[in-house]
Amino acid sequence: MIKKINLSEKFELFTAHWQPKIIGELNEQYVKLGKIQGEFVMHQHEEEDELFMVIEGQMKMELEDDCIDLKEGEIMIVPKGTMHRPIAAQECKILLFEPKSTLNTGDAQDERTRHQLDWI
Amino acid sequence: MIKKINLSEKFELFTAHWQPKIIGELNEQYVKLGKIQGEFVMHQHEEEDELFMVIEGQMKMELEDDCIDLKEGEIMIVPKGTMHRPIAAQECKILLFEPKSTLNTGDAQDERTRHQLDWI
Repeated sequence: MIKKINLSEKFELFTAHWQPKIIGELNEQYVKLGKIQGEFVMHQHEEEDELFMVIEGQMKMELEDDCIDLKEGEIMIVPKGTMHRPIAAQECKILLFEPKSTLNTGDAQDERTRHQLDWI
Repeated sequence: MIKKINLSEKFELFTAHWQPKIIGELNEQYVKLGKIQGEFVMHQHEEEDELFMVIEGQMKMELEDDCIDLKEGEIMIVPKGTMHRPIAAQECKILLFEPKSTLNTGDAQDERTRHQLDWI
């Protein structure tokens, strides 16, 4: 049975930062939601392009030689092999779209690395 | 050079209904924007799952045995092989996420079939 997905309702189901949740799957890709605050680890994904969409709030995407401000209604696609680091001064709600194989910290490892993600 | 994509700015670049525009590409998938109004043709995609996200307005997704209302902030994933028909009483702005191979009218053909889509 096909059901719709309401983003606001899904965001109410979790509070932890840097722990993306899976809300949908299609064509070997996952749709994920995340709440972020603070500075993440600089990393890259060798094989996966990654889409970030800001649903609520603001964030910055730090690149090796640039830093891009993103606000609600804005999308950024980070190509594979591109070093990047999400930063949010205050809590920011984001949607991610990326292959199922994508690890949140890419080629970096820290205490926020998540090998298993929950479906919500 | 990586640039962000502002959805509102992109929606200002076109007016025609049922003529999705490509705004991004990742992992052999396209991110598209569409403006829809009226009733589309019932169709299916044999090999492609398709994601609809309502950015502004309201729409209905008619299925063979169901009809699902979608409003701003809601997503629906239509699995491959599922007959579906988007309907919007008034103009609705949507984001699509689907493989690059996806044809807008799937296995159906009408005057709105688009084999070539513009990048905006």
